[in-house]
Amino acid sequence: MNIIDSSNLREKMEDSFKQSTKGCIIRPSVAVIKIGDNDKVNEDIKLKEEACNKVGIYFRIYEFDDSVSELTIINKIKELNNDDYVNGIMLELPISEKYNSRKIINTIQNSKDVDGMTDINVGRFISGRKTIIPCISLAISTLLKENNIDIEGKHVVIIGRGKMAGRPIINTMINENVTMTICNSSTKRLKNYTEAADVLISATGIKDLVTPDMIKSDAVVINVGYQIENDKIIDDIDPSSISKKASVIITAEELIKMRVTMFLKNTLLCYNNKK
Amino acid sequence: MNIIDSSNLREKMEDSFKQSTKGCIIRPSVAVIKIGDNDKVNEDIKLKEEACNKVGIYFRIYEFDDSVSELTIINKIKELNNDDYVNGIMLELPISEKYNSRKIINTIQNSKDVDGMTDINVGRFISGRKTIIPCISLAISTLLKENNIDIEGKHVVIIGRGKMAGRPIINTMINENVTMTICNSSTKRLKNYTEAADVLISATGIKDLVTPDMIKSDAVVINVGYQIENDKIIDDIDPSSISKKASVIITAEELIKMRVTMFLKNTLLCYNNKK
Repeated sequence: MNIIDSSNLREKMEDSFKQSTKGCIIRPSVAVIKIGDNDKVNEDIKLKEEACNKVGIYFRIYEFDDSVSELTIINKIKELNNDDYVNGIMLELPISEKYNSRKIINTIQNSKDVDGMTDINVGRFISGRKTIIPCISLAISTLLKENNIDIEGKHVVIIGRGKMAGRPIINTMINENVTMTICNSSTKRLKNYTEAADVLISATGIKDLVTPDMIKSDAVVINVGYQIENDKIIDDIDPSSISKKASVIITAEELIKMRVTMFLKNTLLCYNNKK
Repeated sequence: MNIIDSSNLREKMEDSFKQSTKGCIIRPSVAVIKIGDNDKVNEDIKLKEEACNKVGIYFRIYEFDDSVSELTIINKIKELNNDDYVNGIMLELPISEKYNSRKIINTIQNSKDVDGMTDINVGRFISGRKTIIPCISLAISTLLKENNIDIEGKHVVIIGRGKMAGRPIINTMINENVTMTICNSSTKRLKNYTEAADVLISATGIKDLVTPDMIKSDAVVINVGYQIENDKIIDDIDPSSISKKASVIITAEELIKMRVTMFLKNTLLCYNNKK
């Protein structure tokens, strides 16, 4: 089977997190901010809450509807920054474009920025300095490493450069010894690039933009982008259609779950850095 | 002639800088820190000093030999941070590997970081926020724009991802509507990538790594990397050898000069932001 299943690995990691929170006099705690309503965000939050409960991290959720002012959000973040019982803070994305998401994110104290999204944490990450690494980046690195998928010297093609997923992945790959091509909506003859990819990462959220004929034989295919249709996760690149062609497939669902595990990991990192 | 000559453009920009410093009651001032001895750095500093004198920016140089302690440098930067008469600070790179250059650079106050190199300025730049943009990035953008070279939708191939040049250029291109491939020393079959490049940027400092047969007809070739041999600048890709094949060539010398002009521009930006 070439579709990665990391349930055992996640189970093992979460067990170790549980052991470490057991020894805590004050429980680690993380605060998630949700603005508006979005299927993907709702699903993400549900998974995070369940995972936090499982390992003994106190999960707080602050929900606002789309009518909330930017100032209210910013003041809430400042309050959480000053709250010694809160170790990590995360703004769930996407949010309505009427908000300045970068301004909101940059209000988060760097040491509590559990998804590594503030300007200074991004800058540190790119410079190769010690910092909080985005959960999506950690999720991909962990899945590759734990499944012995060696990308050294390979040609990695990334489609999409969105702030939520594409960028953090690009920032990860730039420090790896790989040749990297970044495609986006302005790319002409996309197939020329996809069929040259040893590792193909799709982070567009556009279904079937890449079809089986566009993939190199034995490629590693990583689905970061997805849609939700009738409560089901639909990958950017349909895994069943490429299972005979790709050597390894990481599905969006697998990544979503590993990203949640990395969210736990980063929360504990923030907690331990504080001590 | 397809080899870009921007002397008129630089002259015009420097004239306008001169006009603006004439109106200043307190003269804009920039401090450059040099550690050790290096031909490229010496040449760069000479050009910066001349240009500053020409436009009325007070140029201060702090020279240390390779035996200086990191702490001495850091304390000097802190002193310059606190000096209201210093508007911009720049550490000349490269420096000996025994120093932690990232730590030294991050001591520079963000608002005086005239080459846009601190973690927070890099993070802001990547996030598309207002910040001080590295001189090399500004130099390339300016040369492309002022010579009406449209890269929209093009395939840009960058060889090299060093912190001094490759990275800032990658960070510029990531926000442009281009498909970008980043090659480095781990890239196999480099020719496959270079011959597919509409715009080829070499930032390796390795002479003749790219030979004329590796270039696409009518490509735009940008030489960022170079060596100094017998006081002469030797481009990564020999311009004379590709003058019949490339549609446009930007030489390393041209870039060095435009980078100095951008150094003046950023110094005035720091000065004006302070007011």
